[in-house]
Amino acid sequence: MASLRELGELEVLRRLAAARRPPTGTVVDSGDDSAVLRGESGRDLVVTTDALIEGRHFLPDWFSPEAVGERLAVANLSDIAAMGAQPRWALLSMGVRPEHDADALVALQRGLAAALARDGAGLVGGNVAGVEGSEWFSLTLIGDSVEGAVWTRRGARPGDHLALSGHPGRAGAGARLARSLGPAAKAAEWRPLLDAWIAPTSRVALAQALGREGGVRAAIDVSDGLGAALELLCQASGVGALIEDDAWPEDAPLELAALGLGMPLSALRLGPSDDYELLLAIEPAARETCRAVAAAAGAPLAFIGRLTDTPGALMLRDARGADRPLEAPGYDQFAGGG
Amino acid sequence: MASLRELGELEVLRRLAAARRPPTGTVVDSGDDSAVLRGESGRDLVVTTDALIEGRHFLPDWFSPEAVGERLAVANLSDIAAMGAQPRWALLSMGVRPEHDADALVALQRGLAAALARDGAGLVGGNVAGVEGSEWFSLTLIGDSVEGAVWTRRGARPGDHLALSGHPGRAGAGARLARSLGPAAKAAEWRPLLDAWIAPTSRVALAQALGREGGVRAAIDVSDGLGAALELLCQASGVGALIEDDAWPEDAPLELAALGLGMPLSALRLGPSDDYELLLAIEPAARETCRAVAAAAGAPLAFIGRLTDTPGALMLRDARGADRPLEAPGYDQFAGGG
Repeated sequence: MASLRELGELEVLRRLAAARRPPTGTVVDSGDDSAVLRGESGRDLVVTTDALIEGRHFLPDWFSPEAVGERLAVANLSDIAAMGAQPRWALLSMGVRPEHDADALVALQRGLAAALARDGAGLVGGNVAGVEGSEWFSLTLIGDSVEGAVWTRRGARPGDHLALSGHPGRAGAGARLARSLGPAAKAAEWRPLLDAWIAPTSRVALAQALGREGGVRAAIDVSDGLGAALELLCQASGVGALIEDDAWPEDAPLELAALGLGMPLSALRLGPSDDYELLLAIEPAARETCRAVAAAAGAPLAFIGRLTDTPGALMLRDARGADRPLEAPGYDQFAGGG
Repeated sequence: MASLRELGELEVLRRLAAARRPPTGTVVDSGDDSAVLRGESGRDLVVTTDALIEGRHFLPDWFSPEAVGERLAVANLSDIAAMGAQPRWALLSMGVRPEHDADALVALQRGLAAALARDGAGLVGGNVAGVEGSEWFSLTLIGDSVEGAVWTRRGARPGDHLALSGHPGRAGAGARLARSLGPAAKAAEWRPLLDAWIAPTSRVALAQALGREGGVRAAIDVSDGLGAALELLCQASGVGALIEDDAWPEDAPLELAALGLGMPLSALRLGPSDDYELLLAIEPAARETCRAVAAAAGAPLAFIGRLTDTPGALMLRDARGADRPLEAPGYDQFAGGG
């Protein structure tokens, strides 16, 4: 165990470089001023960046270094999945304290690289800067896609079916439980919620499988909250949405968390929560194919409603068939409380 | 004037997006989960990332928001220039306090975008996160190059001439003067040094012009210190170097700063200093062409010595023809003092 200060920057960079393998397409690895990458012609580049900040997006008591790396990878992979693209190359920029254990930094990179590798991507470079206060890790992920084939938020049409992967709300509930219960949140009943927060799954494989079949007209990642994502997709596509309350997937752990936290279930499901899940607009004829593709990929996919021709109207139909407006606040980086 | 907290994240992102124009090749701008870019086939991608941290890489009293943006752009442009590549697309990830003035953030993006645009690149996306302590700005810059044509640190050969752009040492001297003299560092005699620190120039145009002529065998950016850069280039190429003291460009302001700061001139020139200049290994036959190209590009370029066949030996020849080892420490992110 040695701190970054003890080893010095060059040795830290050397250890990080030695602990990873350059992914396919790497012409010059990160030991130069820039990395050089060779893609395939006829493919579009798809790029995104997202950061995790200590104390805000992860709590060191709850996250191993590997888990921080994995979560950062999944946060970015999710944005590439939401475009229906293939992740390829990543660059990691970090601000770390001089006292940081160098082995822990290598472990963080290992978790990051493992999560990238599961989806066919790899780390090609980065930057390390010394900080005094909160540490931060910012990843930029470059993917690619067949030219002109990306999904955006803009292609949905009235009548399209709305499909949702996974169980949004769980990650936010897990974070709330950890903050309010402390170590007691490690009890077995909260495990699916803590896992969603600490060890989320990427939906790249699902998106790639759906992309091969066709039928997805628009997509968005729900990591700022499902309600906010639905609103953004409808705005971008000029449509409205009707969600069917009884079409939602059962989520017993989340229902229990709603009771335990004293919050409405709908606030957990629709409000701010760092779940790296996808909301998809699917043409009606492709519904059953997409359902089968998701099942084959081992990814939960629920059809929760459809899009309407009333731009901006987000409605919820309850079990008795009555419609009312859907209300769901998104997450704001700058709102108080942190 | 409104703070980020007052406006909320979505409005801040909207203002930042409205205040920029997507660069050439942008298929989907940053208003989606990822940006989508279309390059030219037969070109390699060249990618880099670098960050500026408040209090360490910039002092708010000395840097306008535009200047922070420009300096961040130049720090990354310099890595692309050192590969002989063309900058294309950038993503900005930032950690900012909720109290940050939104107009100032738009101004920072304006400075960044202007510096990128001067070299043919543009901003395509980013991420904004709220922080409590020091603010930070991390840029990832993607460039491209004719397939297989990039410069690396590895191509230098014994006998190659060493060329150096600009006046390394000035930025570090400027930062030291600002910290030690306070407002008195704004005196006219320190102006070239303060400018090198606050408003550095990118060498992309020089690198592109040299690339068109050929003759550059290896290149490196000197922003971690000229001595460290020379050592890395020699290590990577398996050569040594002989620097001629009297071939150095005259630098009266830097000499004055050495006196004022009580430091040896060589420590300022060779030691840690954030100068975004290039050190190039040039084949002997191309020396005069490269000199003419630099003059035409309006970029100072000095030939300061040549490479030798003694791997790892870095020597300095003084005005009387005597050789002695060159000693120059690089910059370490994690060393004390910050």
